[in-house]
Amino acid sequence: MEVLKGRLRVRNMLFRELMAETLATFVLMMFGCAAMAQVKLSRGTKGEYLSVNMAFSVGVMSAMYLARGVSGAHLNPAVSLSCCVLGRLPWSKLLPYCLSQVLGAYIAAAVVFLMYYDAIMDYSGGVLTVYGPNETASIFATYPSDYLSLGGSFFDQMVGTGMIMLCFLPLDDWRNKPASADLVPPLTAVVLMGISQSMSSNCGGGINPARDLGPRLLTLTAGWGTEVFTCYNYWFWVPIVAPMVGAVLGSGLYLVFVQWHLPDSEINETNDLQFKTMDIKTVKKLEIIKNNNAVEMAHKV
Amino acid sequence: MEVLKGRLRVRNMLFRELMAETLATFVLMMFGCAAMAQVKLSRGTKGEYLSVNMAFSVGVMSAMYLARGVSGAHLNPAVSLSCCVLGRLPWSKLLPYCLSQVLGAYIAAAVVFLMYYDAIMDYSGGVLTVYGPNETASIFATYPSDYLSLGGSFFDQMVGTGMIMLCFLPLDDWRNKPASADLVPPLTAVVLMGISQSMSSNCGGGINPARDLGPRLLTLTAGWGTEVFTCYNYWFWVPIVAPMVGAVLGSGLYLVFVQWHLPDSEINETNDLQFKTMDIKTVKKLEIIKNNNAVEMAHKV
Amino acid sequence: MEVLKGRLRVRNMLFRELMAETLATFVLMMFGCAAMAQVKLSRGTKGEYLSVNMAFSVGVMSAMYLARGVSGAHLNPAVSLSCCVLGRLPWSKLLPYCLSQVLGAYIAAAVVFLMYYDAIMDYSGGVLTVYGPNETASIFATYPSDYLSLGGSFFDQMVGTGMIMLCFLPLDDWRNKPASADLVPPLTAVVLMGISQSMSSNCGGGINPARDLGPRLLTLTAGWGTEVFTCYNYWFWVPIVAPMVGAVLGSGLYLVFVQWHLPDSEINETNDLQFKTMDIKTVKKLEIIKNNNAVEMAHKV
Amino acid sequence: MEVLKGRLRVRNMLFRELMAETLATFVLMMFGCAAMAQVKLSRGTKGEYLSVNMAFSVGVMSAMYLARGVSGAHLNPAVSLSCCVLGRLPWSKLLPYCLSQVLGAYIAAAVVFLMYYDAIMDYSGGVLTVYGPNETASIFATYPSDYLSLGGSFFDQMVGTGMIMLCFLPLDDWRNKPASADLVPPLTAVVLMGISQSMSSNCGGGINPARDLGPRLLTLTAGWGTEVFTCYNYWFWVPIVAPMVGAVLGSGLYLVFVQWHLPDSEINETNDLQFKTMDIKTVKKLEIIKNNNAVEMAHKV
Repeated sequence: MEVLKGRLRVRNMLFRELMAETLATFVLMMFGCAAMAQVKLSRGTKGEYLSVNMAFSVGVMSAMYLARGVSGAHLNPAVSLSCCVLGRLPWSKLLPYCLSQVLGAYIAAAVVFLMYYDAIMDYSGGVLTVYGPNETASIFATYPSDYLSLGGSFFDQMVGTGMIMLCFLPLDDWRNKPASADLVPPLTAVVLMGISQSMSSNCGGGINPARDLGPRLLTLTAGWGTEVFTCYNYWFWVPIVAPMVGAVLGSGLYLVFVQWHLPDSEINETNDLQFKTMDIKTVKKLEIIKNNNAVEMAHKV
Repeated sequence: MEVLKGRLRVRNMLFRELMAETLATFVLMMFGCAAMAQVKLSRGTKGEYLSVNMAFSVGVMSAMYLARGVSGAHLNPAVSLSCCVLGRLPWSKLLPYCLSQVLGAYIAAAVVFLMYYDAIMDYSGGVLTVYGPNETASIFATYPSDYLSLGGSFFDQMVGTGMIMLCFLPLDDWRNKPASADLVPPLTAVVLMGISQSMSSNCGGGINPARDLGPRLLTLTAGWGTEVFTCYNYWFWVPIVAPMVGAVLGSGLYLVFVQWHLPDSEINETNDLQFKTMDIKTVKKLEIIKNNNAVEMAHKV
Repeated sequence: MEVLKGRLRVRNMLFRELMAETLATFVLMMFGCAAMAQVKLSRGTKGEYLSVNMAFSVGVMSAMYLARGVSGAHLNPAVSLSCCVLGRLPWSKLLPYCLSQVLGAYIAAAVVFLMYYDAIMDYSGGVLTVYGPNETASIFATYPSDYLSLGGSFFDQMVGTGMIMLCFLPLDDWRNKPASADLVPPLTAVVLMGISQSMSSNCGGGINPARDLGPRLLTLTAGWGTEVFTCYNYWFWVPIVAPMVGAVLGSGLYLVFVQWHLPDSEINETNDLQFKTMDIKTVKKLEIIKNNNAVEMAHKV
Repeated sequence: MEVLKGRLRVRNMLFRELMAETLATFVLMMFGCAAMAQVKLSRGTKGEYLSVNMAFSVGVMSAMYLARGVSGAHLNPAVSLSCCVLGRLPWSKLLPYCLSQVLGAYIAAAVVFLMYYDAIMDYSGGVLTVYGPNETASIFATYPSDYLSLGGSFFDQMVGTGMIMLCFLPLDDWRNKPASADLVPPLTAVVLMGISQSMSSNCGGGINPARDLGPRLLTLTAGWGTEVFTCYNYWFWVPIVAPMVGAVLGSGLYLVFVQWHLPDSEINETNDLQFKTMDIKTVKKLEIIKNNNAVEMAHKV
């Protein structure tokens, strides 16, 4: 096993990050698409709209714990874009991150398709459609309600994604009395559950270009045909573009209303500097201690 | 960006607090009103009463993390009043806080109105009413059940808000084995979920004057007309006045039954004093450490 | 206020504990009875069985944070009895604790009765009964299903309460890798939610003599008549006696299967001793530090 | 009591672990089977599919806190197998662990059978069957949907169990920014709730050979007859074999995609070594401190 590990170990840092990001988005969408499939295909007997909201949220938490030690677990091109704008991610990494996320979502949709293949065939009578009472396309990608105007759906996706950033940034802002860093994943998951409970009825709550495009590509290739892209007058671009705009606006709102007025950011720098100038052994020790949430003070003088 | 930050940075402390309080109440009501809209306008197919309770609770948590580092995140005039009575907020700040909260709730209601405009028009057939099977006013403000007497609704709102303070104060009372301070927001959110699951069927569980008045003003200005204030014999004052009374009573109950009997409050003062007399560098270090929940003990003697 | 505090401050330690225990059981049953009332009286439109389970659980959490710094927050005579058996509570305090709990539950039931008076009258047509489609007695106390034998209901209550102790004791056992002490209330609440989701359909999931007897006394005095005690062949004694037996058995199960085999309990004693021999100032400092979950290490040598 | 403790105390380490593992799996299945019974036998009036998912998840959390200080709380032969493959459990312990888990699940199913005996008889009219509208076998073991192929059910069980390991391993991996160790049980419980909300509609979400085989044996011996094993063409082997394969694959996925690329595992070894070379008194002190999440720094120089 050690030999295998040596051979498979990837030296390229970016590639490691992309692997983590792909796997994490895969996990997110495994929970999400499978929950949609379970509730729809059982015609509500094995779950309800609420359980889909909850399962998606569990996916967020699991995916974040999986990848945040490596890639930061963005899981969402709109989040990656915001991180670039905020200076937390180099712009050169934006496209690779986004592609990894779409790839992870595509693979997850494919696995869910296989897993629920028998059920989908049973439910739809073998005809894979986008419209009608037995449609199954909405298990994977999102589609707008009939009453919705184009402007309405753009605004919906923009606001929903803006709320993600507006609620997520304080969780991660050490100057604003956040939760302890190890609980950011479940708290973020709760925020996303709330958003899907309150802002997903207009057009399915995509609020994530990768979450929507990856599974839509799967339905394109798995038998639903080009209608998944052409339907509702080529609506598919809305959950790709609007979240990008919304995430940046939401981040800006937090910065302008709260973060820029928080007291001296210099402490943080001092802190970082302090860590940087320590010798490596001390840093390691500190790492150990942080992990244990404990303290050793038995050093004899 | 740094230039922009320098220009927009607000020097006035109170104004900063009001900005944070407005934004936080905005976030609370975005979740709350949008969840009401989602469940009602989808006629229960995209959620249920329970998911409204949960989404409101997510709003409480998110709003608290957003603003508690700046304004304390009261989100509720009744809570601000209690803080004044308890000596935690200067009386001079009470009115500005309350107005900020109402403003934040108003803006949130406006955004939700825009976001669900198509759905509201589709659901109500374009007629915005307070009564009848297709009424949509209850998405925003609260209204009493038909069977309810005036005294009954006053008592309901008083008890509900009293429970908030009775359950919230111990979470924040360091002498009463509370949770760690960074988890107060989710725990408070859980308390509010419980209250809305058990004390909201009589008259909608306002228990927050800003949560009720802000969205009611929006419905007044957005087309529902003056009926939102005149209906049920000018009932709108109940969810404004009763919570103020209830919150103070609930706080008093905790003080008289528990807090005043807890052992020596002097420790706290010692603690504060200890911090105050430390030199600034030590305080900063301590801040860093608290944030990391960790300990540095690598100080060589 | 300081004067008032001085006058009202109670010097008797036991009386302080009973006050806390009464208020905490009051809070528990406010959530519990009110949630039952909300769901039943709204005929399921403002909640469901699941939301009652959740609200009860929120009540457990809130009540524990309220009183655990004073009385330990037993909230349940069966838990108090187990604590006596385990040597954590003097036997002389058992009866006062139990009476306080019953009193708290009675007052909560009375407040809920007032709060939902209009709704109860509307729902029942003004006739308060124990049987029939419009019965309202089950809002307060528990009653067995028709199919249930006496032995079956005794076993049900015994097992349910046994599960409480079996699942609660590890949360509190520092030698068994428990959660951090400040999170015991929400974790206990989750356990109780699980029990009410899985072991409450036979006879309402009383599993707490005070929770059942207090509200039953309220219904006796508030108009439901003696039938609340005589119905089902004087069944009311089952949720009083069976939980007492079950809690002790459940505790024993944990001791015999797990706790007695955990490594050296002496550390704990050392620990306690260490604390006892410290001078009072050090202890106070330690208290402060524990509360802050932080560390002071700025002691100059 | 001390005498009793001395007599009953088990000296054999493996036997202690097996006792803990048996009791923990008992607790898990008490919640699980009882929740299934409550929802099915009340015909959905005392819960819903979602509450079964939640109760199972509470069982996972409670069982983990119960036994993880002793046996690691695997609760699942597939998890034990993965631990063997990962080098965390000696292969010689695999079979005893698995048998303990099956035994615990069997006893839990027996207690639930007794607890719900009256209700089962009432629901089924006294005829215990595997098929038909009044079947009660699915309270205990899992059965496939009619539409499901053998390959489909094998894939379903494999993927579901793979997701457990893929989401659980990061929670426990100190190099990958996990949650603090004391919160692993509730977080694992949340993961399992998500899996049962999204991957349990095809064939009941066994994903645990002991969870399925133990209760199936109970139904065999309690009156359902051999049909519980022969039905659906001897399908019972699928939820035994597929999870074993899936768990190992899921673990491998995490290792290959994330863990092997995390920076230097040597720190951990240093850490362990550091602890090992400490004198016993220091270790004990550290244990105490870790448990208290606090720090002693009152050592005078």
